[in-house]
Amino acid sequence: MRIPADILAAAVKDLSDLVAIPSVSARGEGMEACADSIERLLAEAGFATEQHPGDVGPFVVGETGDGPFTLVIYNHYDVQPEDPVDLWTAPPFTLSERDGRLYGRGSADDKGEFVSRLAGWREFRKTHPGPLLFKLIWIAEGEEEIGSPSLNRFLDKRFPDTKADLCWWEYGEVDKSGRPIILMGFKGILAVELECRTARADLHSSLGAIFDNPLWRLAAAISSLRDASGRILIDGFYDSVIAPDPRSRELAAKPPFPLESLQEETGGRRLLEGVNAATFYEHLNFEPCLNVNGFHGGYDGEGAKTVLPCTGMAKLDFRLAPGQNPVEIAELLRRHLDAKGFDDIALKVLDAEVLGVRSDPSHAAVDLGAELLEKWFGRPAIIQPSSAASGLAHPFIHKFGATLFGAGLTHHGAMLHSPDENILVSHFENMIGFSAEFFAALAGRFGSAPEAEPHV
Amino acid sequence: MRIPADILAAAVKDLSDLVAIPSVSARGEGMEACADSIERLLAEAGFATEQHPGDVGPFVVGETGDGPFTLVIYNHYDVQPEDPVDLWTAPPFTLSERDGRLYGRGSADDKGEFVSRLAGWREFRKTHPGPLLFKLIWIAEGEEEIGSPSLNRFLDKRFPDTKADLCWWEYGEVDKSGRPIILMGFKGILAVELECRTARADLHSSLGAIFDNPLWRLAAAISSLRDASGRILIDGFYDSVIAPDPRSRELAAKPPFPLESLQEETGGRRLLEGVNAATFYEHLNFEPCLNVNGFHGGYDGEGAKTVLPCTGMAKLDFRLAPGQNPVEIAELLRRHLDAKGFDDIALKVLDAEVLGVRSDPSHAAVDLGAELLEKWFGRPAIIQPSSAASGLAHPFIHKFGATLFGAGLTHHGAMLHSPDENILVSHFENMIGFSAEFFAALAGRFGSAPEAEPHV
Repeated sequence: MRIPADILAAAVKDLSDLVAIPSVSARGEGMEACADSIERLLAEAGFATEQHPGDVGPFVVGETGDGPFTLVIYNHYDVQPEDPVDLWTAPPFTLSERDGRLYGRGSADDKGEFVSRLAGWREFRKTHPGPLLFKLIWIAEGEEEIGSPSLNRFLDKRFPDTKADLCWWEYGEVDKSGRPIILMGFKGILAVELECRTARADLHSSLGAIFDNPLWRLAAAISSLRDASGRILIDGFYDSVIAPDPRSRELAAKPPFPLESLQEETGGRRLLEGVNAATFYEHLNFEPCLNVNGFHGGYDGEGAKTVLPCTGMAKLDFRLAPGQNPVEIAELLRRHLDAKGFDDIALKVLDAEVLGVRSDPSHAAVDLGAELLEKWFGRPAIIQPSSAASGLAHPFIHKFGATLFGAGLTHHGAMLHSPDENILVSHFENMIGFSAEFFAALAGRFGSAPEAEPHV
Repeated sequence: MRIPADILAAAVKDLSDLVAIPSVSARGEGMEACADSIERLLAEAGFATEQHPGDVGPFVVGETGDGPFTLVIYNHYDVQPEDPVDLWTAPPFTLSERDGRLYGRGSADDKGEFVSRLAGWREFRKTHPGPLLFKLIWIAEGEEEIGSPSLNRFLDKRFPDTKADLCWWEYGEVDKSGRPIILMGFKGILAVELECRTARADLHSSLGAIFDNPLWRLAAAISSLRDASGRILIDGFYDSVIAPDPRSRELAAKPPFPLESLQEETGGRRLLEGVNAATFYEHLNFEPCLNVNGFHGGYDGEGAKTVLPCTGMAKLDFRLAPGQNPVEIAELLRRHLDAKGFDDIALKVLDAEVLGVRSDPSHAAVDLGAELLEKWFGRPAIIQPSSAASGLAHPFIHKFGATLFGAGLTHHGAMLHSPDENILVSHFENMIGFSAEFFAALAGRFGSAPEAEPHV
């Protein structure tokens, strides 16, 4: 599908202007300038806008419309650092077009997503100029790339009682074969560090006949946490897991791509026991898991060194299911270690901020979205119950009560966070067209004139 | 006890000459020069001498005497590299005396041991000038500091049928309180490397829901190898262990120093389960053990990185009891890994050369030695059934059939392999005096005129 050339040109111009602002939150650069541009674009598109201070970058809010249905759009205008700069084919903060792609830092993550939706909104408003018959709250933050440290606090303060029906997430994916994916959930995450020290300094390994070994202790502790199938062995770990609803279960039962293609693409070889071509997609969507991210201690050189190291360290992450609270899981982990005799292993929580979410895919807005995505991308949308990865969506889902709707233009070769980040022009067009029609469809399906104030 | 000043002066001169030759086997330096000096010293002391090529340094052999009793003395003339040079108080290859100590690379390990014995030998010969009524084979090698790569081959070739009664080991220890220690054994050693690879490259840790984790696999494999008390869980591991004889058991049952002093000295804090003040010395003497020398894989930086590493590596060593063959233990380890489902973990043997040995401490020569050590050091000797560490003594013990006798002047502050290596002049004197009397005592107790050749 194509959209009118002037619409596309205007969107490319907006994207080009935004990419030109190096809004790198890790360095705290260009935050106000980019927030101002975002605010101006929203204001010009008819939104009532505000800015609120964040820890690093301001929050921009645009609001319009009213009605019983509330849509929240969440985007971010900050980007990852551009280094290594010499691996970019063209300068990172200049939007450049080559071979049907638009290159530049933020072209995909997340300025391209924001601009395509805004361009669609403007198109929608051309044909639907009157008062919007649903409430639309557009939130763009500047700290997503550094973990959204103040997002939750900001939402609590600015939107203490806000309820919403749908949260259009900051991004969505288009798979390798061009099928659009609607993400309905994310896993939560708990990241921890374990440290074990058994002596003041490294010892001769002959003393291993009487002194314990910190690397063996860490190994034993870690191997006590899960079995070969990946099943977590911590008492109470699964107690608060919310079981997938029947529709999600049904969606995950039919993998939209074969396991072999995933293995080929990722290079992952060895599967957990019990994971196979039929079950892997369910695991990716629903199963909490434990990972050892790193394990370090003792000798790391050539050949043998018969040393008894005095200390070792391991980093772990748990991907959590909806219902599991990372802070509580950290407590269960501590209890497990103590119960197994590893009370000497120090536990440091590195990250316990992100809760898992999973929305019901049978929401009518999801059906509308899926239909329109199929129309614009020419292929049936995949409705994915949950990403295997994590996103800080729980404030919108748990507090606002919204259904997550993750649709967008991020393709599998988008090089997010890397040199030569890019989007496909065709996807950009598709998402402009989709957005225009999605706003119209939501208004048609859920929009209604606000009730008149009762006369007293 | 003091020895005549001229004797001591001659020994110091010999030691000074030997220390001045930087016979660093790791660099292959000074090997022939040092071997020549050793040979000349032995020849001047009345030995029939030979040199034989080794992989790096020549073997020097001195022989004299004959009789039904055979004493083998084993020394080495190579030394560890001298670096870091700037941490030496005086030049490493110049013997210097300060505060009752003689400093220099090799002053203790092993030139001081060799020279003290040789000086004692010369003293003994002054009063016992006739034919030696026992057989003495003195072997000095130049590759001990690099693991004696060709010692075994040399002994097989040069001494295919030699039997011996006693092997006076290259060193012995004097403990912190000045008590001489007679070592009766060493542990064997098996050093291995485990590697596990589960993917082509590191993956996003969200994929841990389906792909296995190489660090978890290594951790689980390692924790399956022993329990918290240090007991090895490999099938058949203990089958070939030779139980200590009653005398050795009795010696180990009474620790000659308290556990607290060992903990204070080494800084080791956490004991294996079941190890306590009463049992630690038995463990040090008799128990095989498993150590994790190093464990490395994945992220090692600050904070969290949610990566699923593709590979990990661990190095282990096993200290083995007499009877356990490191090559066979490596096979049992491979079988254990396979049986536990870790057939994907690669096993590389780094060292399987050193077999454990333990001699019967009730040999009459040990009693003689202990008596004389007590006389010269003024404190009762400790007879230690086995070092907790390893030494390549098995060719002498298993093939020659000798009883190990490890007595010498290496004190606990000797800084072996480090800057400011040193010996105490008083210990040097004691070992010269001890050696003279020990040779005399052996001749008195075991010496007898060789049987006349039968006339045909």
